[in-house]
Amino acid sequence: MKEVAAFEVGIKLGALFHQFIGAPVSLKNAEILEKAMESCVMLQPYVVSAEVRINREKLKEKLSGFNYCSLDGEMLQARVEVEVEGEKVTGVLEWDEEKRYPLMRLIR
Amino acid sequence: MKEVAAFEVGIKLGALFHQFIGAPVSLKNAEILEKAMESCVMLQPYVVSAEVRINREKLKEKLSGFNYCSLDGEMLQARVEVEVEGEKVTGVLEWDEEKRYPLMRLIR
Amino acid sequence: MKEVAAFEVGIKLGALFHQFIGAPVSLKNAEILEKAMESCVMLQPYVVSAEVRINREKLKEKLSGFNYCSLDGEMLQARVEVEVEGEKVTGVLEWDEEKRYPLMRLIR
Amino acid sequence: MKEVAAFEVGIKLGALFHQFIGAPVSLKNAEILEKAMESCVMLQPYVVSAEVRINREKLKEKLSGFNYCSLDGEMLQARVEVEVEGEKVTGVLEWDEEKRYPLMRLIR
Repeated sequence: MKEVAAFEVGIKLGALFHQFIGAPVSLKNAEILEKAMESCVMLQPYVVSAEVRINREKLKEKLSGFNYCSLDGEMLQARVEVEVEGEKVTGVLEWDEEKRYPLMRLIR
Repeated sequence: MKEVAAFEVGIKLGALFHQFIGAPVSLKNAEILEKAMESCVMLQPYVVSAEVRINREKLKEKLSGFNYCSLDGEMLQARVEVEVEGEKVTGVLEWDEEKRYPLMRLIR
Repeated sequence: MKEVAAFEVGIKLGALFHQFIGAPVSLKNAEILEKAMESCVMLQPYVVSAEVRINREKLKEKLSGFNYCSLDGEMLQARVEVEVEGEKVTGVLEWDEEKRYPLMRLIR
Repeated sequence: MKEVAAFEVGIKLGALFHQFIGAPVSLKNAEILEKAMESCVMLQPYVVSAEVRINREKLKEKLSGFNYCSLDGEMLQARVEVEVEGEKVTGVLEWDEEKRYPLMRLIR
């Protein structure tokens, strides 16, 4: 079951990233976008909690001349917990500066 | 300029549809998703107003056994107005039952 | 490690679904779209094999008056195998008619 | 009609960008991804021609430690021509270095 729970949390993080990357974002709508993303994750099977954050510092660095930018892997952070038949597993998504990659990993 | 305004409103509707189709949606988060989508459109250049609606009747028909579904073209409705150098143009997105297609068109 | 492998295969299926749902598809480009989707999955860490199929019967049923439609969960099928430190795990994505849901599951 | 043609080409560019941004890409699959994106645009109403290019230099700069990256606005280029009742209009998508923005514009 631990394995199934790990599978399920992987689905949620992969889904979150690829559904929302590219969405127009600025300091104005970052919070509502975070809430909407969390609400989407919470609907999916086995999810116990979901926390999605858009890194405001990274966001500011990326703003275009039109004062917004596309949501990307450098600014998106998430933590999702699922429970499958009593087994709880948590996964996180966070930009890895060294690998230059939006790394997803299981945490304990 | 009318032409440029029409081009710009086309961009917004095409972007909206392809960014958010597939997002997990239910009666629980439809409203926050609508607000988030509107906030994304409002950030884009030349947009004066944006109204996004998820058709609740269609949504109910599509709910899976997990009590949510993927946002699709049958339930997504939008109206976006742009203004480019004084020229205002409005475009709408609405499911066309006959063509079975999420039709986007200019309105006057 | 079995757990990590299961997590990784979950990421790939969630990513595939949410990246490509909504893409314009018809009998004309279904094959190139399948190949492109497979090529995207194959780039991701730990993937050993990826098979993506668009169900042609479902596709035909969904064609709009413009002779194409949006790729959706009813027609998308996939099988992805990952290997993490010797542990191999396979996951599949397939429409579940009863649940009306694009179900992802581990197989043995 | 010029206006409608401009609207239609806007739809195609907005759709292309927001459908495919985030897709895994490397030097290995850039060509098949270009072909798949072109095939998707070609299915849409009124499209006469579609050319999609992934800038290989930009792509190389963005590669992660896993030797691929997410397709983004800095590397995606497109040119789409539509014809509506005899009126032809062409739109392009290209990264604007100064505005740090994936600019879409009509060309003559």
